Amino acid sequence: MKKSIGSKALIYPSPVWCVGSYDTNGKPNVMTASWGGICCSKPPAVTISLRKATYTYHSIMETKAYTISVPSKKYAREADFFGLTSGKKTDKFRETSLTPTRADKVHAPYVEEFPMVIECKVIHTVEIGSHTQFIGEILDVKIDEEILGEDGIPEMLNISPILYAAESRNYYGVDGYIGNAYNLGKSIKRQLK
Amino acid sequence: MKKSIGSKALIYPSPVWCVGSYDTNGKPNVMTASWGGICCSKPPAVTISLRKATYTYHSIMETKAYTISVPSKKYAREADFFGLTSGKKTDKFRETSLTPTRADKVHAPYVEEFPMVIECKVIHTVEIGSHTQFIGEILDVKIDEEILGEDGIPEMLNISPILYAAESRNYYGVDGYIGNAYNLGKSIKRQLK
Repeated sequence: MKKSIGSKALIYPSPVWCVGSYDTNGKPNVMTASWGGICCSKPPAVTISLRKATYTYHSIMETKAYTISVPSKKYAREADFFGLTSGKKTDKFRETSLTPTRADKVHAPYVEEFPMVIECKVIHTVEIGSHTQFIGEILDVKIDEEILGEDGIPEMLNISPILYAAESRNYYGVDGYIGNAYNLGKSIKRQLK
Repeated sequence: MKKSIGSKALIYPSPVWCVGSYDTNGKPNVMTASWGGICCSKPPAVTISLRKATYTYHSIMETKAYTISVPSKKYAREADFFGLTSGKKTDKFRETSLTPTRADKVHAPYVEEFPMVIECKVIHTVEIGSHTQFIGEILDVKIDEEILGEDGIPEMLNISPILYAAESRNYYGVDGYIGNAYNLGKSIKRQLK
């Protein structure tokens, strides 16, 4: 028997992705987003939806470019932190000691230490309500060389991506529970004070 | 060191969702889709992208409504089958002995046996290329009563959703590898012949 829990932005699985962009001064920034997904095969394209209040929103509106770095489970703490603070006042790369690498195909940085990276050029922008959807053509996919299979394709278990459960605000991996969202990264945030 | 594997519709994790719709004769149909994701919080909204060649595309263009039923791992075989055949010639509910239940808020059916269901009304349609993106406002979320937590929120591990790895064409769960995409459902398809 099904029970209605109302009208909510809730479906499983939702991803945990880290969206990289340069601000108007060229400073690299990264924020965590779960509202997105592949939306086309030809051209290959992926969406991310952001609130206008985010610093990243304004950067992408300017540059029309972003990357998605897929954090592996071992970077859950850093990925959570990227969602806890704004790039307007914090250099999130410096605070996490992670490395911003300039993408090859677009004007945006990615997180060098994360195993999977997508480089995107904005081809559509859709105003939906609280969120603006950016549809980005995927110009390149990059993978850590050591985890590519013999077929040149990355194995899911080696990427070890993170899933987000909205409402209960938990993270999961492809091998079970990881931890609390909006909490794991607080240890990094506290160091800022 | 990162290696470029080119411009591909590939990012982890991508979901395995079963999209329910009625055709113009009111016949329930369901197809599997991985190109989608949440795209807005207010109103809550989710995208799915479909090729025009699919039977479901035409149904949704007509009804402006769809459901997403989230299969749990134990229904991986049925979910795979839903992507192997067209509703134009096959009654996929009958062949799998799964139950089409009429949604409460929109004119579309969902898969009764799957643990999580989203009812959506189309609010935007975006032509991207090979795929048309439907943006659906989420009018209701339904969960199997027995797996709701005390907080009224479903636990990810109880829903046990399926992830799709494009390119390598494999399915994974929140507890590891499940099986080959475009293969698991063949045992059902063979029975049709």
